[in-house]
Amino acid sequence: MTEPEMSYRTLGVEDLRSYLADQPALAAQLGGAPADWRIEEVGDGNLNLVFILHGPAGGLAVKQALPYVRLVGESWPLPLSRASFEQTALVRQNALVPGLVPKLLHFDEALALIVMELLQPHKIMRHGMIAGTRYPLFVEAITDFMAQTYFHTSDLALPAAEKKELMGVFAGNHALCKITEDVIFTEPYEIAENNSWTSPQLDGIAAALREDLAVKLAVSRLKVLFLSQAQALLHGDLHSGSIMLTEEDTRVIDPEFAFVGPIAFDVGALLANLLLSYFSQDGHETRPGDRDDYRAWILDAVQGCWTRFEEKFLDLWRSPAAQGDAYPKVLFADAQAETVLEVERQQVMAALFKDTLGFIAAELVRRTLGLAHNIDLEWIEDPDRRAACEASALGLARDLLVAPEAITSVSALTEAAATWRLWSPPLGASFTPELW
Amino acid sequence: MTEPEMSYRTLGVEDLRSYLADQPALAAQLGGAPADWRIEEVGDGNLNLVFILHGPAGGLAVKQALPYVRLVGESWPLPLSRASFEQTALVRQNALVPGLVPKLLHFDEALALIVMELLQPHKIMRHGMIAGTRYPLFVEAITDFMAQTYFHTSDLALPAAEKKELMGVFAGNHALCKITEDVIFTEPYEIAENNSWTSPQLDGIAAALREDLAVKLAVSRLKVLFLSQAQALLHGDLHSGSIMLTEEDTRVIDPEFAFVGPIAFDVGALLANLLLSYFSQDGHETRPGDRDDYRAWILDAVQGCWTRFEEKFLDLWRSPAAQGDAYPKVLFADAQAETVLEVERQQVMAALFKDTLGFIAAELVRRTLGLAHNIDLEWIEDPDRRAACEASALGLARDLLVAPEAITSVSALTEAAATWRLWSPPLGASFTPELW
Repeated sequence: MTEPEMSYRTLGVEDLRSYLADQPALAAQLGGAPADWRIEEVGDGNLNLVFILHGPAGGLAVKQALPYVRLVGESWPLPLSRASFEQTALVRQNALVPGLVPKLLHFDEALALIVMELLQPHKIMRHGMIAGTRYPLFVEAITDFMAQTYFHTSDLALPAAEKKELMGVFAGNHALCKITEDVIFTEPYEIAENNSWTSPQLDGIAAALREDLAVKLAVSRLKVLFLSQAQALLHGDLHSGSIMLTEEDTRVIDPEFAFVGPIAFDVGALLANLLLSYFSQDGHETRPGDRDDYRAWILDAVQGCWTRFEEKFLDLWRSPAAQGDAYPKVLFADAQAETVLEVERQQVMAALFKDTLGFIAAELVRRTLGLAHNIDLEWIEDPDRRAACEASALGLARDLLVAPEAITSVSALTEAAATWRLWSPPLGASFTPELW
Repeated sequence: MTEPEMSYRTLGVEDLRSYLADQPALAAQLGGAPADWRIEEVGDGNLNLVFILHGPAGGLAVKQALPYVRLVGESWPLPLSRASFEQTALVRQNALVPGLVPKLLHFDEALALIVMELLQPHKIMRHGMIAGTRYPLFVEAITDFMAQTYFHTSDLALPAAEKKELMGVFAGNHALCKITEDVIFTEPYEIAENNSWTSPQLDGIAAALREDLAVKLAVSRLKVLFLSQAQALLHGDLHSGSIMLTEEDTRVIDPEFAFVGPIAFDVGALLANLLLSYFSQDGHETRPGDRDDYRAWILDAVQGCWTRFEEKFLDLWRSPAAQGDAYPKVLFADAQAETVLEVERQQVMAALFKDTLGFIAAELVRRTLGLAHNIDLEWIEDPDRRAACEASALGLARDLLVAPEAITSVSALTEAAATWRLWSPPLGASFTPELW
């Protein structure tokens, strides 16, 4: 995928109207005359333009990559090729989990433009969780997405040649990976311009983390996994802002960070963002305790996400779909071999869980001390209240980084989160590492 | 790299003569008139044509990929693109360790043809070792090759973008990787047409290995590393047949299996082939004991290869060359951080050693029970004598696969090899697993 910048231009609302007027299939989907179409730019993400279009017959969603990081500005250029990688990942995901991602309707590589079905009345999950909305079908849907897309793009399912072709294609998406490498695994642990936090309340904790060599070593090991463990095609940015849903329907959007990497990275991002919502609920209560039930729902969702993902991934691995070059069937054919292989499967999942704990921690830290914060926390107006929530997230994060062996199950993880939620450290510069 | 088969043709001696006559720089290197050139096809490898050319002014070596596996025949097709990957790897290696690989003089992608300097009076190391030749500078040279090429193509040295570009390019070499995946990590542990061994002497041991679930699990874990751990640009086939040397000069040739994979795979292949030579020496003695000193030299070389590789790799990691995205310098800047990072370096090397033991074992097994055997052993005419040597190699291999934790140092490895050398199992179908 080469950079198609020669013919690229950023589209305004009227450019987009005439562009779509020239695409009969898309125009028909909207219906009526182009002048009838209502077009809004609604991008609230960090990187792109997003348009919502409504016509007499229906709607469309249009995403255009900008040649720079929207959150930061033109000073941080970013290749338009990410739209190609997003499109390639979307095609793959649509083949594997058709009901769990948006349908892809059109791709224009030169314009770095993707046209998808309009998801309505779906909401970004993060907004729903701030409002305290339960999503009863979410756990089943997201664990289907994870188990199916990771398993079927791993060496457990794919012939080695196909897996390596996939690695080769997505190795080109290194500019997006580099953002993750920097803003998740490096900057929060150094003094960096991109960082921000609730100050002065978290100054002491941020300083303690920057000085904590055990933490920095643990995060650096996770970064090595991110850089070199080519396990499966990941979403690459699987947080509650990349999920749109209703109570009945769940869709995972925006796989522009897709690459072949460690499965635990994606799983960790998802669980961390649920936990960030959990810690943030204290800031959204109108009366102390009125989010108790919702908090319990979130911790149940954390449990369910791991447990059901593990079950589904294992079921796939035990199924005839496990035709990949890893653990070749021909070497494990009889009943005794199956017993040995089943022990191995459990060990692989245990190792994946341990790595997941680390990646959860890295995400908790970067969302509170790094570049891109979550509105779950940012929308808590009282800085003391917000800092208290964030401090709990950071306390859990440190435990997960320096003593992951204490957390041997997802129940232990949710218990640790509940314990850290009740923690009230002295905030400000007076925080000392002994308090961890 | 696309398949250039449209204009490909296999060159005979006279085709090559006229091809080189049209290349002024190469013709000048040979000197005289084309009719004066002495051209021989000498390929004794498994995959390619190799020509040695002598002219009045000098010599050349020419390698042409065949569209199939030479060892097996046209029934096993193999892409010509491997010549491109070999050339790309050679360019990289020439930049990193210019004195340790052949100079590249010409590449013709359409013909899958590489012209290199003629190494003379260099011998293939395997032949030298069968003859009992010591190479006093070998350990320093090969450990330079390994430390420099692996370190400088790893995330310790390279920016992530460059490392991923390298991964992306060599992901295309999956047909060659697939050979390794099959003939090293799978076939020796199943009943497969490609397998052969000294029969009936090793029938019992081969059967025991095929039934040994601990062995098959260990080998399968190594295969997962081979499939998914993108650590550094490897040679991919680093055995004593891929090394040409004199007592003064060492060159690593034939990197057509190059890909970005686990460093321990290459290191294990090298050490295993030294150990195969060690076990084979009993078969080359004219009087019992007359190779005792040479055996001691080989075990010293095994020790030196690991020890000096580890020292050199660590020195590079401690040096200003460690500018890669892994363990970023900015997080480990002061003296206390350096202490912590040094402990981590030792742990990383210990883990690499443990994986190396496994890959040694996999190579020992495949060279005695699989498709491609070594002349170190094949040239022992008496099958009982040969089988005794091979059984020792297989005994060590099994220990390394099922109980690697017992071997915590390279001294322990060479001691284990010496112990297994003296092992005399009942050979034939009567061998029982209890004897392991």
